[in-house]
Amino acid sequence: MASEGFIPSYETGTEWLRAGGQASDVVMSSRVRLARNLAGWRFGHKAGHGDRQKVLEICRDRIAAAGLSSVGAQSSSAPSTPPQVMWIDLRESPPIERQLLVERHLISKQHSKGKPLPDLKSGDIETTDPRGVAVALPDERLSIMVNEEDHLRIQAVRGGLALAEAWADADRADDLLESKLDFAYSPRFGYLTCCPTNVGTGVRMSLMLHLPALKLTGSIEKVKRAASDMNLAVRGFYGEGSEAAGDFYQISNQTTLGKSEEAILNDLAGQIIPKIVEYERKERRDLISKRGAALEDQVYRALGLLTHARLLTAEESMQMLSHVRLGVVMGLVSDVDLATVNALMLLTQPAHLQRVMGTDLDQEQRRAARAQLIRRRLLKTT
Amino acid sequence: MASEGFIPSYETGTEWLRAGGQASDVVMSSRVRLARNLAGWRFGHKAGHGDRQKVLEICRDRIAAAGLSSVGAQSSSAPSTPPQVMWIDLRESPPIERQLLVERHLISKQHSKGKPLPDLKSGDIETTDPRGVAVALPDERLSIMVNEEDHLRIQAVRGGLALAEAWADADRADDLLESKLDFAYSPRFGYLTCCPTNVGTGVRMSLMLHLPALKLTGSIEKVKRAASDMNLAVRGFYGEGSEAAGDFYQISNQTTLGKSEEAILNDLAGQIIPKIVEYERKERRDLISKRGAALEDQVYRALGLLTHARLLTAEESMQMLSHVRLGVVMGLVSDVDLATVNALMLLTQPAHLQRVMGTDLDQEQRRAARAQLIRRRLLKTT
Repeated sequence: MASEGFIPSYETGTEWLRAGGQASDVVMSSRVRLARNLAGWRFGHKAGHGDRQKVLEICRDRIAAAGLSSVGAQSSSAPSTPPQVMWIDLRESPPIERQLLVERHLISKQHSKGKPLPDLKSGDIETTDPRGVAVALPDERLSIMVNEEDHLRIQAVRGGLALAEAWADADRADDLLESKLDFAYSPRFGYLTCCPTNVGTGVRMSLMLHLPALKLTGSIEKVKRAASDMNLAVRGFYGEGSEAAGDFYQISNQTTLGKSEEAILNDLAGQIIPKIVEYERKERRDLISKRGAALEDQVYRALGLLTHARLLTAEESMQMLSHVRLGVVMGLVSDVDLATVNALMLLTQPAHLQRVMGTDLDQEQRRAARAQLIRRRLLKTT
Repeated sequence: MASEGFIPSYETGTEWLRAGGQASDVVMSSRVRLARNLAGWRFGHKAGHGDRQKVLEICRDRIAAAGLSSVGAQSSSAPSTPPQVMWIDLRESPPIERQLLVERHLISKQHSKGKPLPDLKSGDIETTDPRGVAVALPDERLSIMVNEEDHLRIQAVRGGLALAEAWADADRADDLLESKLDFAYSPRFGYLTCCPTNVGTGVRMSLMLHLPALKLTGSIEKVKRAASDMNLAVRGFYGEGSEAAGDFYQISNQTTLGKSEEAILNDLAGQIIPKIVEYERKERRDLISKRGAALEDQVYRALGLLTHARLLTAEESMQMLSHVRLGVVMGLVSDVDLATVNALMLLTQPAHLQRVMGTDLDQEQRRAARAQLIRRRLLKTT
């Protein structure tokens, strides 16, 4: 297991931004997360620094020994980047490094900050709370947070509509880990978790959808209501509490008890998501036929702004990239490629931007650097 | 005297849009207008159809005979476009033709529509009210409205800060006409006019200024107050009652009685306008040094919008062209030329746009055509 302090391939290798998966005109990525805890160890707010340190060591060692690098690895992986699992101890990571992981959806914001421990009143939580993350390289299809809300949060991700594949990866990682670790499990309730909403399967399946047409026509509200009626959660680009930046929406199950993983998978991937995808596509077709000129205008204004502005906030960039993405997948824009647009959505986030530019930047400098980066990347392809 | 029904050189030849005159970074054009009436003929609302018809004929014939084509003619005029004076009878001009003349600042909106006559209760005013305009080609430096508010409105225009030259042209045209016509003149009051505000010299000297920096910083209000204190009027791009579209302001004298033409000229061209020009330039330098990034951002966003939008209104085009113009004269944009920007301000007006496109267009079609025209012209130079 590698043990470097940063993601070396920040420019590429993020499976969830890979364009070209199934239904990638609407579905950005499919994600499966499993919540697990070790039997015999305190979890949640009962766990102190000593418990967490011990759990961290156990998990770190067993993850390294579990042979996880084979999970979800692409057969086409170049020999120059052999699959490996990198361990990152977040106490040792500088803030910008942790922010980078948040932006890559490898750790939660909460995990980047650490949590106050009952037996540790002094010291900086960020550098003392024992927690880490294991990331499968080169494509980050698999990652495992240690000592986030639960002892283990196993996450598998695939680009496009590929929930079954993501589920297979998560399930396989779960099996490999379970052969090395004793998970807290109740025959009656299933897997025990810190928060009761995760008890049972401990699974959350979620899809990141790009729904600009439903947003534009206002029909997104219908989708939200229907999702809510089916016990699905609708969140923004950066999860719980985040805004639906750039017309991206994460839809996920909320039920983990009394419903099998296969049932959740079949409901989402087999029924609900295909319906939303079809709804979005229908609205796009309607927009083209009824308001084609206005739609094209919106797409090209966004492209003009991105290729000319000298100062751009992350929010505006995201919204404009969303318009351009719609233009690209609808064939309105032919000389910009989808992979570039997807990559820019990540690279223009604050930590990535500073990594690309190779220097620390304050907010104002970031606005200028962001505009420069977008301009260069887009003009390279146009 | 030519007698065609349209301006043949609508694409070029408009002196007031010619870039390159003195102080053309701020001053678009200098304009002098003289109000004159024929002695012995009713004027204003006292004149009926018969009077106006007779006055029209007299003026038309005397204008043709006055040798006006030499006034203000450029020595460098190509032999392919010899100076000539074209007569346009506005009763015979289709509406779009008259709109074209309004957009070129050759006739007023009021003159394009005609006025209700006391002795003509029926019929369409636009096609019955006897009125016309003489235009010196090829550069339109001189034009004479017949039967507008006054019998004659002589107008001379020059690009940039060249009020003395415009005054010399107007004065020369006045002399040539006065040798053929008997003007209504009172030894006590001077030239008699329809509206008392023009009695005396009958002169209005005005300058079209581009004041984006004063607008942006809000200092334009100080300029307006100072102008008002000095009995100067501040108007928009299309004169009385029009908004200051695209940060363009017309400043002109309001006093015609008790102040000689030379005094007005010296006050405006020698004192007031140079001060405003210097004020605008100072504000531009301050913007560059204090808010350079934001200014550059504004300029390039405008350029990006103009080169990418698929639908543009005349108002938005004007505002964006104004930003780009500022960028060009300040050297922030190097690959767009000022003449193109100036020309687009005229060519994107409704009648010109339809002339360029060679077909009638409704408002929605114009928005698409306008965007197309701007895109093509700007991308040709960039």
